[in-house]
Amino acid sequence: MKKRNIGTNAFVLPMPQSLVGASLYGRPNFMAVAWLARVNYKPPLIAVAIGRHVTGDAIAETGRFSVNFPDIDLVAKTDAAGLVSGSEFDKSGLFDVFYGELETVPMIAECPYCIECRVVETVKLPVDRLFIGEVVAAWSDDRFLTKGAVDVEKIRPVLLSMPDNRYWTLGHQVGEAWEDGKDIATALPKIGK
Amino acid sequence: MKKRNIGTNAFVLPMPQSLVGASLYGRPNFMAVAWLARVNYKPPLIAVAIGRHVTGDAIAETGRFSVNFPDIDLVAKTDAAGLVSGSEFDKSGLFDVFYGELETVPMIAECPYCIECRVVETVKLPVDRLFIGEVVAAWSDDRFLTKGAVDVEKIRPVLLSMPDNRYWTLGHQVGEAWEDGKDIATALPKIGK
Repeated sequence: MKKRNIGTNAFVLPMPQSLVGASLYGRPNFMAVAWLARVNYKPPLIAVAIGRHVTGDAIAETGRFSVNFPDIDLVAKTDAAGLVSGSEFDKSGLFDVFYGELETVPMIAECPYCIECRVVETVKLPVDRLFIGEVVAAWSDDRFLTKGAVDVEKIRPVLLSMPDNRYWTLGHQVGEAWEDGKDIATALPKIGK
Repeated sequence: MKKRNIGTNAFVLPMPQSLVGASLYGRPNFMAVAWLARVNYKPPLIAVAIGRHVTGDAIAETGRFSVNFPDIDLVAKTDAAGLVSGSEFDKSGLFDVFYGELETVPMIAECPYCIECRVVETVKLPVDRLFIGEVVAAWSDDRFLTKGAVDVEKIRPVLLSMPDNRYWTLGHQVGEAWEDGKDIATALPKIGK
C-alpha cells in the first residue's frame, strides 16, 4: 500500500451521530453533534465538542446537557436540528421531550437511548468548546436492552461521515473485543527487562 | 416509549475503533482506542482518551501520536493490541510501520487511513488523560478516496460497542447530512425577538 499525504482536515471515521440537548431561553433545544466520545472510565465522563453555537452558551450557563442517540427513522429530524440555530428557530417542537434526574435537561422521548450529564470541565479550543460531562443517568427502554445494557444493534444508531456528509447505518458483528486477539497477543515477544 | 434509568456506565454508541500509535522505549507501539473524537474545526484537532497505560506516558513524553483506522480484516490484530500492554510485550512487529511528516510517529501501513498529530493540550481526568492533538497530516491511498477525501465505505472501518464488547462493520448509507432535514428545518417557527 502506497500512501500519500491527503492534508490536515482529517475526521474520525465514522462518527456516532447524537443530538445534544440543553435548556435554551427556558425552552428545550437540540443540536446535531457527532464530535463526541467517552473519555473517562470512573466516573463515566463524556466529552462533546460544540462550535460557536448558542447550544454551547446554554450548556455553559446551565452546566448540564443531554446526549440523545437517534435511530435511523429520525435521520431527517436529526439533520434539521443540525441545519438551523436555536438562536433563530424554536426547535422545542421537533421531538417529544422528557426529563430525568437533573430535572431541567431536556431529553428526546423518540430516541432509544439518552444520557444526561453534569459539566465537570470545559476546555476552550480555538473554535469549539469541549464540554466534559459526568453521566448522571442513562435512559432507555427494556426492548433496547440485552442483559441490562443498551444493545447497539437494537437501537439502530445513525453514523456520520465527513467531509462527504453522509449518514450510515450500523452493519453486522464481526468480532468480540478483548477476545479475538488472544492467540496473537499471547504469541507476542516479551520485552527484555 | 417508557424509559427507565439504566445507570451511569453509559457509552457513546457505536464507537469508531482506532489504533493509537506512539514511540515507546524507542520502538513503535500501538494501542486499541475507541474513545476519540474530532474536537475543533480550524485547526483540525482530535482528542484521544488514554487510560493508565504506558502509551499515555509515551504520548506525554514525545508530544505526538498517530490515529490509525484498521479495516475489518485487521480485527484480530487490533484486538491483540488492546489486550496486552507495551510495558510487557513488544507490539512493534504486529504491523508494518511507516513514518510521515513528524518522522518519529509510527503509523500502520496495513491501515487504510492514518492521521498524525502533535499534542497541543492535555486534560488530566480522574483515570484517563485526554490528549488533544493538532492534525499534522493524514495518510491514505488513492483507492480509498472519493473526490480527494477518504471514503468511509472504501476503508471498511471497525466499530466497537461497550459494555458488550463487540466489533461491527459499517452498514449502508441512509441519508445526506446538512440536506435531508431542509424541509423540516425551514418549517420550524422563528423565535420572537
